[in-house]
Amino acid sequence: MPSNARTVRIEWGDCDPAGIVFYPRYFAMFDHSTTLLIERVLGMSKHQLYEAYGFAGYPVVETRARFLLPSAFGDDVVIETSLAAVSRSSFDLTHRLSKDGALAVESFETRVWAVRDPTRPGRLKAKPIPPELVARLTPG
Amino acid sequence: MPSNARTVRIEWGDCDPAGIVFYPRYFAMFDHSTTLLIERVLGMSKHQLYEAYGFAGYPVVETRARFLLPSAFGDDVVIETSLAAVSRSSFDLTHRLSKDGALAVESFETRVWAVRDPTRPGRLKAKPIPPELVARLTPG
Amino acid sequence: MPSNARTVRIEWGDCDPAGIVFYPRYFAMFDHSTTLLIERVLGMSKHQLYEAYGFAGYPVVETRARFLLPSAFGDDVVIETSLAAVSRSSFDLTHRLSKDGALAVESFETRVWAVRDPTRPGRLKAKPIPPELVARLTPG
Amino acid sequence: MPSNARTVRIEWGDCDPAGIVFYPRYFAMFDHSTTLLIERVLGMSKHQLYEAYGFAGYPVVETRARFLLPSAFGDDVVIETSLAAVSRSSFDLTHRLSKDGALAVESFETRVWAVRDPTRPGRLKAKPIPPELVARLTPG
Repeated sequence: MPSNARTVRIEWGDCDPAGIVFYPRYFAMFDHSTTLLIERVLGMSKHQLYEAYGFAGYPVVETRARFLLPSAFGDDVVIETSLAAVSRSSFDLTHRLSKDGALAVESFETRVWAVRDPTRPGRLKAKPIPPELVARLTPG
Repeated sequence: MPSNARTVRIEWGDCDPAGIVFYPRYFAMFDHSTTLLIERVLGMSKHQLYEAYGFAGYPVVETRARFLLPSAFGDDVVIETSLAAVSRSSFDLTHRLSKDGALAVESFETRVWAVRDPTRPGRLKAKPIPPELVARLTPG
Repeated sequence: MPSNARTVRIEWGDCDPAGIVFYPRYFAMFDHSTTLLIERVLGMSKHQLYEAYGFAGYPVVETRARFLLPSAFGDDVVIETSLAAVSRSSFDLTHRLSKDGALAVESFETRVWAVRDPTRPGRLKAKPIPPELVARLTPG
Repeated sequence: MPSNARTVRIEWGDCDPAGIVFYPRYFAMFDHSTTLLIERVLGMSKHQLYEAYGFAGYPVVETRARFLLPSAFGDDVVIETSLAAVSRSSFDLTHRLSKDGALAVESFETRVWAVRDPTRPGRLKAKPIPPELVARLTPG
């Protein structure tokens, strides 16, 4: 299945008074890793999706994470993200964050495809992933 | 001029490895204080503005702040926000954040009125504040 | 088991371009709810714990969450947090976030007790929860 | 004077319901740019400073910013950061954030050198910058 990896420098502002990453920040990092992977696989930016499909995001409907080792400001961590499953209107991803080769955080998430609701400005609704995009998400 | 005050508990996640508020978080607090003041004065929620006026926010175009005393997690601080000036398409606000009666942060900001651009989905543009709203922002 | 509830106004800055809460922000809200509950039950502020016990936080080692309904800026949501289990060096909590009485997010987390490592400035290590604090966390 | 430049991809989670960067996030980006510059000029990581000097950060005491053009998720922006002045216990920096060559945000900040207060665990105090570090910050 498609996957990517990127290195992230832990910033001072990511960390809490204990000097380690404030854990909600990990989810923000994973969210961006998901976007980088999806954009690459679909060959479209999130902004192009927004304009082409009335797309309004792929909100997370379920996630879980285990935090095995803390990371501190200044650390360089590697985040590996993989598409784990794709269905009609949702998809699953896994994230593995490691430091110096040791697994520090692992996470799993399920997301749904959402579009802007034309009948209610500013609101969104779930919808099947467009078939041509499903095809790109499930190569082979 | 209209003003409000609220007490905010500094959260663990607001603070950095030095144990004090990570300063970008102060601007997030001020942003919410601005919304609470504007909503009260206009008698409409930001969401109602969104729906009634095609409103898309009142982005800050200029701000400055002085940080006189640090705040640590667990501190209860008071944020006083005042509307300082209102013009055709922008307005100014001041924020004073104090702890135990001592001024800790003071900030000034100028915001403009923005609406969704109907010709470019997902984009916004500046526009004069609707006159009936200007009237509510400038009592007396 | 001890529990608490609080109402939180969803802020503009909590939300993403889809107009709904950026999900990492929910974890920041849950983190603060945990602190409010633990401080009340222990009768000490997080800062007092810091000073009295060399305490450096209670990092999350595992969490999971289901997001059933989105929340938008301006919504008032209720977060109910309960201590679910306490062991020698860790404790479990549940969070239920609801809007207009409907469950919107439910989450579970396990945290460990951490202290500053005197041999490595700026680092921390896990340690058993002081017995007098365990007694307060497990009434009855 | 020393300066650096880096490219930053605007993330979904950096943006607000108007689809543009929530302005406190710009300050978080500037904070990290400052750290990257200071670390390069001093030849030490923020963590090494922490350990070598009892360093606890260089909190901002004053900042101002003008936001000339909005940035949206997916944009690649360039942040140029320069050391503008160095005195005995503080230093000034400027940040210029541009998009496609157009200046979008410009900001100025003054920071002080802070160390951990040995008499009050978890607190910090301002102090002169160590002379050997001042020398590295003011080449020529």
